[in-house]
Amino acid sequence: MRNRFDRQLQQLNEELIEMGEHIEYAIEMASNAFATQDCEKAKEAISYDTEIDQQERDIEALCMKLLLQQQPVAKDLRLISSALKMITDMERIGDHAADISEMTLSMAGAPYMIKPDCIQKMAVETIDMVIRSVNAFVNKDLEAARWVIKRDDVVDELFDSVKNRLIDLINSNKENGEQASDMLMVAKYFERIGDHATNIAEWVIFSITGTHEDA
Amino acid sequence: MRNRFDRQLQQLNEELIEMGEHIEYAIEMASNAFATQDCEKAKEAISYDTEIDQQERDIEALCMKLLLQQQPVAKDLRLISSALKMITDMERIGDHAADISEMTLSMAGAPYMIKPDCIQKMAVETIDMVIRSVNAFVNKDLEAARWVIKRDDVVDELFDSVKNRLIDLINSNKENGEQASDMLMVAKYFERIGDHATNIAEWVIFSITGTHEDA
Repeated sequence: MRNRFDRQLQQLNEELIEMGEHIEYAIEMASNAFATQDCEKAKEAISYDTEIDQQERDIEALCMKLLLQQQPVAKDLRLISSALKMITDMERIGDHAADISEMTLSMAGAPYMIKPDCIQKMAVETIDMVIRSVNAFVNKDLEAARWVIKRDDVVDELFDSVKNRLIDLINSNKENGEQASDMLMVAKYFERIGDHATNIAEWVIFSITGTHEDA
Repeated sequence: MRNRFDRQLQQLNEELIEMGEHIEYAIEMASNAFATQDCEKAKEAISYDTEIDQQERDIEALCMKLLLQQQPVAKDLRLISSALKMITDMERIGDHAADISEMTLSMAGAPYMIKPDCIQKMAVETIDMVIRSVNAFVNKDLEAARWVIKRDDVVDELFDSVKNRLIDLINSNKENGEQASDMLMVAKYFERIGDHATNIAEWVIFSITGTHEDA
């Protein structure tokens, strides 16, 4: 029985890693489409979200099966219920990749007057956070999870700096308003991706220690 | 057999109406919390999202049962598969109500210098769109669905006007920047709620006519 349970837990880990990779791919696709104003890629990123939604359903079904069939207790119960919560945050990250791509489409009418470099940095940081948070779950790595939570400060600082720069641009010239406010939205979605990666890391800590550490 | 199927379809309608009411409640709660800077209510709106997520799961399970057990064809198949798609948009509306409340919490540090009246108007319009789109599904009302799709123009106009006003405020005084950019985000979430209500209405039209009418 335990052997079968272990195999099912192994399957859960593998599916989480796969979902993590798909999310990484979605953010990268959305980020590239945004940087290069590539509408075809943006549309691809939007439709890719359906795949991530489906993965959430599949993992959810697996977790429910494990909970009902195996009636796990203590650590195993925490592990599975944490996975159940994590996938909600993972799915939301997929939503935000689609949101970013919707913004890319609505900004397609005009070339960028404002360079989106700093937003690209946010993309790199958040992709890193997502990968590390999922790996922390799979490897039961408390330190890695804490690292992710700490790292969110960097994303928040990047967001504040993007925001201030965009506010300056609007303040200095109203003609920047339309594009700057759209870029602000994109930056906000990346900042939210960082929040969700932080939530994932908090669930990792809960699954290992049984307590919730607030950042 | 058909009688039982009809009863199950009736149940599907009832659950959709209930989910619609919960979403309406969530937007109202988020909108009031935002208008009055009520952090307790904002937190309530955020945790309420879990309930909406659960409803999506329940309705999804019912749809899957109907598809597998009854193997419906033609109109019934369209009806159930449209319901399956609709609930994804309904769930996203719940997410946005939570997003708005997150913004309310992060804006709690300072009283509003900018009156959020126009955003309140967006709230009223989008709540109306959501209710009407769900009712259109239940009553198979093609005209009501088309009305919702048309109505999204009003929400888009309101958003543009909020955006322009906020850009003006930032342009005239940089000190407005922080609050104006936060409010812009809130307005954007309401605009997205309007988009999702439009998607729901498009699924209603598909469920009745079998074709997708793009706005």
